[in-house]
Amino acid sequence: MDKIVIIGGGGHAKVVISVLRKSGYDIAGYTDRENRGMILGVQYLGDDGILKEILTNNSKCSAIIGIGKIDTSELRIGLQRSVGELGFNFPVIVSPHAVVNEEVSLGDGTVVFDGVVVNSGTEIGRACIINTHSTVEHDCQIGDNVHLAPGVTLSGGVTIGNNCFIGTGANIIQCITICENCSIGAGSTVVSDITIPGIYAGNPVKRIK
Amino acid sequence: MDKIVIIGGGGHAKVVISVLRKSGYDIAGYTDRENRGMILGVQYLGDDGILKEILTNNSKCSAIIGIGKIDTSELRIGLQRSVGELGFNFPVIVSPHAVVNEEVSLGDGTVVFDGVVVNSGTEIGRACIINTHSTVEHDCQIGDNVHLAPGVTLSGGVTIGNNCFIGTGANIIQCITICENCSIGAGSTVVSDITIPGIYAGNPVKRIK
Amino acid sequence: MDKIVIIGGGGHAKVVISVLRKSGYDIAGYTDRENRGMILGVQYLGDDGILKEILTNNSKCSAIIGIGKIDTSELRIGLQRSVGELGFNFPVIVSPHAVVNEEVSLGDGTVVFDGVVVNSGTEIGRACIINTHSTVEHDCQIGDNVHLAPGVTLSGGVTIGNNCFIGTGANIIQCITICENCSIGAGSTVVSDITIPGIYAGNPVKRIK
Repeated sequence: MDKIVIIGGGGHAKVVISVLRKSGYDIAGYTDRENRGMILGVQYLGDDGILKEILTNNSKCSAIIGIGKIDTSELRIGLQRSVGELGFNFPVIVSPHAVVNEEVSLGDGTVVFDGVVVNSGTEIGRACIINTHSTVEHDCQIGDNVHLAPGVTLSGGVTIGNNCFIGTGANIIQCITICENCSIGAGSTVVSDITIPGIYAGNPVKRIK
Repeated sequence: MDKIVIIGGGGHAKVVISVLRKSGYDIAGYTDRENRGMILGVQYLGDDGILKEILTNNSKCSAIIGIGKIDTSELRIGLQRSVGELGFNFPVIVSPHAVVNEEVSLGDGTVVFDGVVVNSGTEIGRACIINTHSTVEHDCQIGDNVHLAPGVTLSGGVTIGNNCFIGTGANIIQCITICENCSIGAGSTVVSDITIPGIYAGNPVKRIK
Repeated sequence: MDKIVIIGGGGHAKVVISVLRKSGYDIAGYTDRENRGMILGVQYLGDDGILKEILTNNSKCSAIIGIGKIDTSELRIGLQRSVGELGFNFPVIVSPHAVVNEEVSLGDGTVVFDGVVVNSGTEIGRACIINTHSTVEHDCQIGDNVHLAPGVTLSGGVTIGNNCFIGTGANIIQCITICENCSIGAGSTVVSDITIPGIYAGNPVKRIK
């Protein structure tokens, strides 16, 4: 299996490292603006300027974004674009402690963490975080750069646009559509379509910004 | 293992198919009013009129309802009765990705989906859906035709009457009793007994219909 | 592996027994004020007065508290202290159906139940219950005698003080601190720090007592 570089060494990187190890990846190290020392035994490589050099020395090397996404997805999107342009590929990573059923498609750079279940007929775009213990039921359509926080439950037939963030433990009922660039608060419940980008929270959710 | 026929070919049937395959069942096909083509590689057999013929040709053939239950359980109950009268048996299906602990009883036709945990001392009736990532703690008493949507959590000692629907991600605290024919909205929290059939939602739930 | 005695034989003891069996423990029996008969095949030993005698006959014998914690943790704390003073040790128990990632520390007497995920960098104190299907994300700091009810989700970097109870399905967002001796209601969502002990519920939580 390819060597893999982790882009960004914060808290989310730890969860990424655990999943990569279980999946048999050989982790080259992590890049970051600052040296955070060893993270779960993974070494610091330098800032992103080092990436070109790494590619020169390793003909096949892939990358993964180690930064979470709470308020904005721009940092993650920008990094995925710039690192991709250098020549790194972003593999799909699925924890061996997750269940991904038949006829599911997962885009490049998407990571499925421990305890997740993804059911049949679901399509998930690129660079998504499907975080710990989330449920994605059958026939969901998830765009690019979507982050499901831990414990999210999407019922069957849910559609979520690009760059959405669905907060910790939020629940979305069957066949709901949420447009691009929405943030759904932790513990919220979505029972009707959302067509205007914004920040939503409550049960049922209301637009709060 | 017996051949099994899936009654109804909607979205829920996909989730049923994945669990049947993992459990080693030989799926004969699905029946439905309309031909929906191949579903995850499972063929259309015809409408329910074909079922008698199937039984004639297969001395041992079982069935499973492939239709979910959102607003009413009458369709599921009627099908289970009529197909049962033809001579089909409805096996208990437990995903190998679920955990069912000691001294749990599960009624005919009940399906336990991926990521579920059912704890000791719990009794679950016939034709129930214990959907993805639900938790049923110790000493619960669940009636017939109950549907726990994905991500539901029942604490210890909960009693749920026949034909109830517990919505996505709903939480019920310990030792609560919910009477027959109740529907609990997604994301709701139940902290006191419910004795009148109806539709309930909120935290804590209120009767809304 | 040591023989283990379960202190208290209520409903929670059943869940404890299932996890102990899967973990290969040889269960000596349970103590309780009253004889509740066989519990999942585990015999009654007598009240806590019998514990000294057990230790005399078994040079290496450990113990686990089989009592849950809803309103107060005093009973659990008192038992753990008095039984510990007799000479019993309280092992860390992790269900084989749970996932505990790298660089996690778990204190004596803490039990991690089925379906739980604990992520890297997290420290959990002594005598905690991390109940069925809970999620504890990276870099959490959990004190002693904390009970996470089933289906709780703690996001990354959450700090929880000693003796807290987090109710069924509650969600806590990233980097929140909750002080000692708090009780968080079922289905609640915590989005800001809690600095005064008390009972909190709602989304977002408010102090109700």
